[in-house]
Amino acid sequence: SPIEGISSVVVHPLVMLSVTDHYKRVAMNTKKRVVGMLLGHSHKGRVDVVNSFAVPFAEDPTDPKVWFLDHFYLDKMYKMFRKVAIKEKLIGFYSTGPDVKAADIGIDELLRSKGVAHPVFVVIDVRPHVEGMPVQTYATREVMTDARVVERQFEHLPNEIGASETEEVAVEHLLREVNDPSVSELGAALSAK
Amino acid sequence: SPIEGISSVVVHPLVMLSVTDHYKRVAMNTKKRVVGMLLGHSHKGRVDVVNSFAVPFAEDPTDPKVWFLDHFYLDKMYKMFRKVAIKEKLIGFYSTGPDVKAADIGIDELLRSKGVAHPVFVVIDVRPHVEGMPVQTYATREVMTDARVVERQFEHLPNEIGASETEEVAVEHLLREVNDPSVSELGAALSAK
Repeated sequence: SPIEGISSVVVHPLVMLSVTDHYKRVAMNTKKRVVGMLLGHSHKGRVDVVNSFAVPFAEDPTDPKVWFLDHFYLDKMYKMFRKVAIKEKLIGFYSTGPDVKAADIGIDELLRSKGVAHPVFVVIDVRPHVEGMPVQTYATREVMTDARVVERQFEHLPNEIGASETEEVAVEHLLREVNDPSVSELGAALSAK
Repeated sequence: SPIEGISSVVVHPLVMLSVTDHYKRVAMNTKKRVVGMLLGHSHKGRVDVVNSFAVPFAEDPTDPKVWFLDHFYLDKMYKMFRKVAIKEKLIGFYSTGPDVKAADIGIDELLRSKGVAHPVFVVIDVRPHVEGMPVQTYATREVMTDARVVERQFEHLPNEIGASETEEVAVEHLLREVNDPSVSELGAALSAK
């Protein structure tokens, strides 16, 4: 049965590029991952992830239980985003993974404490040598452990890359421009001046 | 001669999609335009516009001299962005145009007063029925008017859509996914549930 009634997570193009940009700025050529918040909306089990923002995050590579996420920054940035995008709500978080780590259960808990009922967790592997930018989506479910303790664990959710017509037009346009040799030549000619 | 030594303005894919998203949220199916700030860096006359954020903006359609831009929001958001993207500086502003309006000279002046030496102004026409998302870039130059008054006027700058290798890979991946009929079918199947 779908976790928390979520049947699909649709990640929009802007989020893919924002996460790529965040990774490039902070973690390129390191073993670090980056973490940020996801904004969007859900309707009848479909969660649309339409926007995102980076948050200051650090974790100890030798001790997975030691991590830091700037709550104050998160709250402030969310408040700022809400002023220009009133319909977009905090719906989860992202990381560039590639794996799920101990801190992620903590971040899920943090978002629950901030009123996000069913946070989705999107892992986008944007490392340049990895083909196809693999996307994994998760939500937590309560499970009973062998020690009869109830704890939360991540389970996979189905996902897709989705775009509205406007977004699709934008992406197609970008690809055409970016691959146009005349554009690159113009660029080269101009930088040679 | 190039205005203020700027030989080319390179607009990166993330900015194109962010502006599209901003327009869709706020101004779709209206005659309004949206305005936001541009972040990036310049080197040897080449200005790279790598990121952006929306700002609350309004203007009176009947009186071009009446407009409002939330300075406080701008300052706060810029400060927030700097915490996660230390190398990206405020370098100008965008609008979805399609025309340059009276308020734009005022916004240019505002950015100068905030320490941006040579603001670039990027107009991206993202209206869905307009083919190719036309991009126009400008900077202001001081000119002497007939009345012997010195004032600033916008002049065109050459521009291109540019992408680093990582960005290009991301855009190509997006286009593949977004056009993949199996993905859309999965989406349709899931929403039908």
